[in-house]
Amino acid sequence: MLKTLLAATALTLSFPALAQMDAAALRDAALKDDVAWDITEGITTEIGPRLAGTEAEARARAWALRKLTALGFSNVRNEPFQMQTWVRGVETAEVLAPFPQPLALTALGNSGATPAKGIEGEIAYFPTLAALEAAPEAQVRGKIVFVSHAMTRTQDGSQYGAYGAVRRTGPATASRKGAAAILIRSVGTDYHRNPHAGGTGFPDGVKPIPAAALSIPDAEQLERILKREQPVRLKLTLTPRQVGMTESGNVIAEVPGSDPAAGLVLVACHLDSWDLGTGAFDDAAGCGIVTAAAKRIMDAGQPRRTIRILWAGAEEVGLFGGKAYLETHGGERHALASESDFGADRVWRVDFKLPDSAAAVADRVTTALAPLGIGRSQQRAGGGPDIAALVRTGIAAIDLKQDGTRYFDLHHTPDDTLDKVDPVQLRQNVAAWTAMLAVVANAPEDIGPVK
Amino acid sequence: MLKTLLAATALTLSFPALAQMDAAALRDAALKDDVAWDITEGITTEIGPRLAGTEAEARARAWALRKLTALGFSNVRNEPFQMQTWVRGVETAEVLAPFPQPLALTALGNSGATPAKGIEGEIAYFPTLAALEAAPEAQVRGKIVFVSHAMTRTQDGSQYGAYGAVRRTGPATASRKGAAAILIRSVGTDYHRNPHAGGTGFPDGVKPIPAAALSIPDAEQLERILKREQPVRLKLTLTPRQVGMTESGNVIAEVPGSDPAAGLVLVACHLDSWDLGTGAFDDAAGCGIVTAAAKRIMDAGQPRRTIRILWAGAEEVGLFGGKAYLETHGGERHALASESDFGADRVWRVDFKLPDSAAAVADRVTTALAPLGIGRSQQRAGGGPDIAALVRTGIAAIDLKQDGTRYFDLHHTPDDTLDKVDPVQLRQNVAAWTAMLAVVANAPEDIGPVK
Repeated sequence: MLKTLLAATALTLSFPALAQMDAAALRDAALKDDVAWDITEGITTEIGPRLAGTEAEARARAWALRKLTALGFSNVRNEPFQMQTWVRGVETAEVLAPFPQPLALTALGNSGATPAKGIEGEIAYFPTLAALEAAPEAQVRGKIVFVSHAMTRTQDGSQYGAYGAVRRTGPATASRKGAAAILIRSVGTDYHRNPHAGGTGFPDGVKPIPAAALSIPDAEQLERILKREQPVRLKLTLTPRQVGMTESGNVIAEVPGSDPAAGLVLVACHLDSWDLGTGAFDDAAGCGIVTAAAKRIMDAGQPRRTIRILWAGAEEVGLFGGKAYLETHGGERHALASESDFGADRVWRVDFKLPDSAAAVADRVTTALAPLGIGRSQQRAGGGPDIAALVRTGIAAIDLKQDGTRYFDLHHTPDDTLDKVDPVQLRQNVAAWTAMLAVVANAPEDIGPVK
Repeated sequence: MLKTLLAATALTLSFPALAQMDAAALRDAALKDDVAWDITEGITTEIGPRLAGTEAEARARAWALRKLTALGFSNVRNEPFQMQTWVRGVETAEVLAPFPQPLALTALGNSGATPAKGIEGEIAYFPTLAALEAAPEAQVRGKIVFVSHAMTRTQDGSQYGAYGAVRRTGPATASRKGAAAILIRSVGTDYHRNPHAGGTGFPDGVKPIPAAALSIPDAEQLERILKREQPVRLKLTLTPRQVGMTESGNVIAEVPGSDPAAGLVLVACHLDSWDLGTGAFDDAAGCGIVTAAAKRIMDAGQPRRTIRILWAGAEEVGLFGGKAYLETHGGERHALASESDFGADRVWRVDFKLPDSAAAVADRVTTALAPLGIGRSQQRAGGGPDIAALVRTGIAAIDLKQDGTRYFDLHHTPDDTLDKVDPVQLRQNVAAWTAMLAVVANAPEDIGPVK
């Protein structure tokens, strides 16, 4: 009994104390990181937009393989998969009456197309998605539906769930009621003349209709025009197309650990981007952050657990990369998964999902993060989009939550460009990830599945 | 002598004191103004973009005549004139090598056109206009010139003079040296993916070449690509065209004064706008401000001097409206001229150009403006763009200087939309203009020409 107690005391005082000290030193050194910026600048400058399934995304994978190899990681590889691919075409809209003028908009991913010469129709206006859902078909049939809403800026980005619904299901709802097309107010919080792209979907049997997002100034302009209470006629031309199955892929790299039985730590981001911007915030920066942190751990000495870096393909258009990863690697022993996919502003909060056996890991991570201004929450970590399905299978997770106050100003817009990435905040992210990985990858505790 | 002194004392203590009291009361009431917003909202909603010489500008004039008549002004009229008119076409650009990707840009007014299928060429980069001017022809001939620069945000907007030169004369300079086309970094201070339009010119004998402004994120992206020190090839398609002489016009309205011999007070703005935004800041707001202030004076009782409101046409593309006004009305007795054409943010400074005989007018205006946070400068007023030529003939002027800190974020971009107008700051403008007009239109002093 005494022997056991002594062993337990040694465990508490030595391994964790050492790991924590290392984490602190690595964390502080990471505040001078240049690797994350180098990756973010490189992807966005040398590739630019990289819509999933296109040649541009393939160039991004080639870039990724070269970069991860040059950084010294092991097992650098591309894991290709096939996907249904949609590409943008012409997209214009104009008010024909009562006040002729153009409107700025962009097609939603998987939007149907108008004829090349466009369509003309009267607007049927619904202030919310619920109003569209409640509307009788007679109000919708043959019309160009316009749905507005009022998403608000929040630090945790939590309004995206509720207000994103208009984009995710609004088009299918409008189609079921016989709409000719649908326009939504962009799911965003900025007031620039840049519409927010994003995917939508039409279930089997629901006809894909033309579906587009108006920039927020344009949506408010259209609302003002509608308030004049005259019929509003629009001309809309959208010519996107489905190009069939094409290749995408996940790029993977590793820092091999000393104890394969301890399970691997997966750190993820996504390499693809929407096509309007250069995907700096969403999500080149995420790839820069997790990779820079993994490299810092690698350079400090071999960790106990293998760190696996996943630059997922085809996230934006349907989480194809995350699904492909789960199919291929879901059976492997993952100790923990974590993803960076919420911009590049400072981490302000950490959420945990850990088994009771690893409760002390959360405490040590919390301690290591505190000097960076990061507080522990009571919310359960869910992982980012590419690992959420994996995490739902029972894998432990840590979410390093970034400040999202301006995230939905930039998200999926032409404005998602390198100038939006603040190098100082980017380094704070790398420091947070480095501290977290230093603790987790070396934790002596078992990090098993979580109920 | 005593009689004269008494008369002077009476003048100092009665008329001006009374005028000043009126000015204060009118000023404070104007802080609840709705007319300026109503005009700004109306023009931008019911007309939208209104490029000079086009059918949209004609609709704006019809709107203006209705509105000014409804507000109760006298002598409401359109004074048409003919102008050379340029309209936008297709405008796209893409980097072909080494890093294929699209760039966001817009043609400059009076830009030449590429063939419909576009042109391809290598970039010749110049960090400044001076570097382009100094370059030998061999560095420019047959190339797509790209000129960058570094305009800075200033409250008084004073960098526009120097940094606007790249737009005004850069294209002609590049053409003279044999460039195939020219791209400039937008003359602006924002980091949105919205290029800044604006006019350029090609003197007689200088071939109009395709000329466009890149958005600032795109200009910086192109600079980063160029730093990789590989030849950069671009494809550029710009298909604007000159459509010949068309009609524009100045809309004029008046508040008739009681003393025609005292000269009229001209208050100006411009009705046309660039075509990318809805011209809310530039310059629907200006028309709202000067008109709302004139209406407040009219409603308070007949002023001594006639107040003439000028909503000038075709300012953006070459000051055609201002020139037409000067030709038609330059011989009339103007006591003073003033223009609002620098957005809708609060007035922070007042500049004067007054004859010595009217020095006390400046003092009373200064006193009336002080409670609004407006300080008097030592700079000489020059008038706004539509009245500057008139003011140079010797007419007195007052400039109510607006805070321009964010003006060049919006100027000539798609982002110049109603949401950028702050109703509270707009009202402060109306209050400033009302106070100024209350003093100037009623001043007992003679306001004659200024040397």
